[in-house]
Amino acid sequence: MIGICAQFTIQDGKAAEFEAMLTEFVTTVKAKEPGATVYQLCKNAKAENEYFMLELYADQAALDAHGKTDHMAALVAKIGQFLAGPPKLVQGPALF
Amino acid sequence: MIGICAQFTIQDGKAAEFEAMLTEFVTTVKAKEPGATVYQLCKNAKAENEYFMLELYADQAALDAHGKTDHMAALVAKIGQFLAGPPKLVQGPALF
Repeated sequence: MIGICAQFTIQDGKAAEFEAMLTEFVTTVKAKEPGATVYQLCKNAKAENEYFMLELYADQAALDAHGKTDHMAALVAKIGQFLAGPPKLVQGPALF
Repeated sequence: MIGICAQFTIQDGKAAEFEAMLTEFVTTVKAKEPGATVYQLCKNAKAENEYFMLELYADQAALDAHGKTDHMAALVAKIGQFLAGPPKLVQGPALF
């Protein structure tokens, strides 16, 4: 398994739109990608406009496939207009 | 649901001991805490001595209970000797 935590900071006033876009995206991931065993968007309770995504993939192939999906390409094309800065990512093998 | 990503930086030379301690701890969480629906330690593939924990709790009660367990108290008493700095935490409600 491979784990990722991705953190996003959103521009002021764009949280609702961002959440709507991510609702659709996460719903698609959960429906189409059985290898994405955990895919959970959370709101940072201590920081306005900050979100984080908890992700677990069954294996490297599932992660690779995730990166090549049409819905990921569509998200990447749109997400920039919401971000206040580059996402922060930690990624690596799940130990146990 | 409530999500947490906790990031740890470990002192040089202590990774193996840290992993052994966390193996025991995570195994206990998974065995004793059904409200901890995801509890996954991962190694940061891009940074030596860095780990992150992906955590999801069924509700606030599960998170509160987690904080009051004997195994958490035991971990808190031991973990300081391994850390190169304070853990970094993001926490908040899971949106969907």
